[in-house]
Amino acid sequence: MRTISILGATGSVGTSTLDLVEREPERFCIEALTAYSDVDGLAAAAKRTSAKVAVIGDERRYEALKDALSGTGIEAAAGTHAVIDAAARGADWTMAAIVGLAGLEPTMAALSCGKSVALANKESLVSAGSIMIRSAESAGARLLPVDSEHNAVFQCYEPEPGRVSRIILTASGGPFRTWSREQMRTVTPAQAVKHPNWSMGAKISVDSATMMNKGLELIEAHHLFPIGADKLEVLVHPQSVVHSMVEYIDGSVLAQLGSPDMRVPIAHALAYPERMETPCQRLDLAAIGTLTFEAPDFDRFPALALAKDALTAGGARPAVLNAANETAVAAFLAGEVGFLDIAAIVAEVLAQYEPDAPKTLSEVVAIDAEARHKAASVMRRIAA
Amino acid sequence: MRTISILGATGSVGTSTLDLVEREPERFCIEALTAYSDVDGLAAAAKRTSAKVAVIGDERRYEALKDALSGTGIEAAAGTHAVIDAAARGADWTMAAIVGLAGLEPTMAALSCGKSVALANKESLVSAGSIMIRSAESAGARLLPVDSEHNAVFQCYEPEPGRVSRIILTASGGPFRTWSREQMRTVTPAQAVKHPNWSMGAKISVDSATMMNKGLELIEAHHLFPIGADKLEVLVHPQSVVHSMVEYIDGSVLAQLGSPDMRVPIAHALAYPERMETPCQRLDLAAIGTLTFEAPDFDRFPALALAKDALTAGGARPAVLNAANETAVAAFLAGEVGFLDIAAIVAEVLAQYEPDAPKTLSEVVAIDAEARHKAASVMRRIAA
Repeated sequence: MRTISILGATGSVGTSTLDLVEREPERFCIEALTAYSDVDGLAAAAKRTSAKVAVIGDERRYEALKDALSGTGIEAAAGTHAVIDAAARGADWTMAAIVGLAGLEPTMAALSCGKSVALANKESLVSAGSIMIRSAESAGARLLPVDSEHNAVFQCYEPEPGRVSRIILTASGGPFRTWSREQMRTVTPAQAVKHPNWSMGAKISVDSATMMNKGLELIEAHHLFPIGADKLEVLVHPQSVVHSMVEYIDGSVLAQLGSPDMRVPIAHALAYPERMETPCQRLDLAAIGTLTFEAPDFDRFPALALAKDALTAGGARPAVLNAANETAVAAFLAGEVGFLDIAAIVAEVLAQYEPDAPKTLSEVVAIDAEARHKAASVMRRIAA
Repeated sequence: MRTISILGATGSVGTSTLDLVEREPERFCIEALTAYSDVDGLAAAAKRTSAKVAVIGDERRYEALKDALSGTGIEAAAGTHAVIDAAARGADWTMAAIVGLAGLEPTMAALSCGKSVALANKESLVSAGSIMIRSAESAGARLLPVDSEHNAVFQCYEPEPGRVSRIILTASGGPFRTWSREQMRTVTPAQAVKHPNWSMGAKISVDSATMMNKGLELIEAHHLFPIGADKLEVLVHPQSVVHSMVEYIDGSVLAQLGSPDMRVPIAHALAYPERMETPCQRLDLAAIGTLTFEAPDFDRFPALALAKDALTAGGARPAVLNAANETAVAAFLAGEVGFLDIAAIVAEVLAQYEPDAPKTLSEVVAIDAEARHKAASVMRRIAA
């Protein structure tokens, strides 16, 4: 019986993970579930799975959670520190699915237990990748990528040194793949969150529309797989059937394919190193008929170019990029800046702010805060 | 230093293997090379690689080989038994690339040494698969598939039981993929041997045109990978970029892709479990642009249906199928029967001749001979 904790249990990845866990009650049992604000969703999941503890991030909702769980024997807790404590309970397998840099400390707490941590929180790895990887290594924790692209690479990757010649991350190209810059100028939040293939949260959908998402994934891949930045490539593949590829020195390319259902990579991480059944639709390539591929356009999608530069430069650049992007995307979703402003804001913050490489988590958090601050002032200037 | 023997060194697979071996002289050295009739090619390769022994299958060419190798210190030999003896020398790694059932005994001799045997000879596995696999297992030999499809599956296959839900062999569909039966009626040998993607020998090119080749590969796959016949499928993929796929119970599909160059799978087998550099062209999916997939048409390609039935029935059916097909293809290449007659001849032999499952190699050889005999008489009736 494998004990499971899910950090971010009520989001898209969290509910998909619960769906899989609940299908095999003889194989998995829930240790801790956390959510930021969705008390009803959290309490319902905790009751269904007989979780040991349920934690709500927003302290103001503690009473509501306690009421919802009264008489169940499930422990209720609230607040940022309680989320970190839940992560530190050392379940055999933890899903780190809190969105944004808020997921960093809980993820680090889970890694410190030296067990398996499935990583759906890309921002932590982008901003604090080197620190996280070192911490995972010293604790003996196993990082299991859950992003469909990195999970695909993980499934195809032979870790022995000198074998891999390229990692090719596929990108759908997002909803504006064929749009001109002029057309993108008037994109609304509603248009940007409509992803052609995947059902995802708003922030990641906007990142997919700017292609910043693929840039962040390049940075993630660089931390997850020990390969030079020059060997990481992006290939646009609008159908999102091939989830990513690994090329070997002999010319072989291994790829992972599947239906666009996050439960496929989550199930891979959940059962790893075994496999488990899922109810996901089977890939029917004869029915799909055609797969297409094209080179990415760094001119129309400057966010991708900014991320690639940050990857190559390393140090604090990815943390600054990520913080500026999170801030700009939130402002775009709030209707405060335009779609094309997102990459422009990130570029300006990167030009203004060049801190030294962070050595500790608190330095990462400080750089993140300063980059957000700078992004906010750039935005005020744009809005003025 | 890995010692290498190549059975069938002057054919398409043999010369590709030599090309790779000669690129890394510090890693590989040649033990034995064999060929059926190409004395010049064999002697030249033996001299270039300082082989220990060179064997010509056709005994009448012994003197010519001896002359060509005089003064080199390379041992010359000739005849079927000398080929088997060469195979039995127990090189660390043997390429079994003799075409047709003639490759059976040498391949068995190589397997009996308990080392690695790369298998490019599909007919042996089709006709005597169960016997070969048992023999490899009892000798502790490792079978490495070199057919691009089976090598692709091998690269994607997790051997633990219960994980794989489907093996999907891709097929180019051959030169007549879009032709009607009526159009196929007048196909000439010259048309049939022009494969759209791969450069191959005449026999296998005709098999590709009838799609019997893919049927034989289904039977091979059944022996190489322990999975039920009902979990083996064919998918037509005209670009031959995806070389085959493995679907797992979680919905993940792993695929191997590459340029259509046999040196890619050969290099995989040659370096296995490591990898080696090759000069093969790197896959450029953005340049290729489009990959298409379609279901196979068992009505227009009845050879594929015959092979699938033989696979399901098992026993002696695959051996009969293979022998009848070899005979019919030879007759087609000689201009004695038409293209559509090939599958018709095979079907009639299968209907006429239903021997018990062979238990020994000599029973396989006897079934093979009888099936060829029956095929010949069917052909005489057609020609009359």
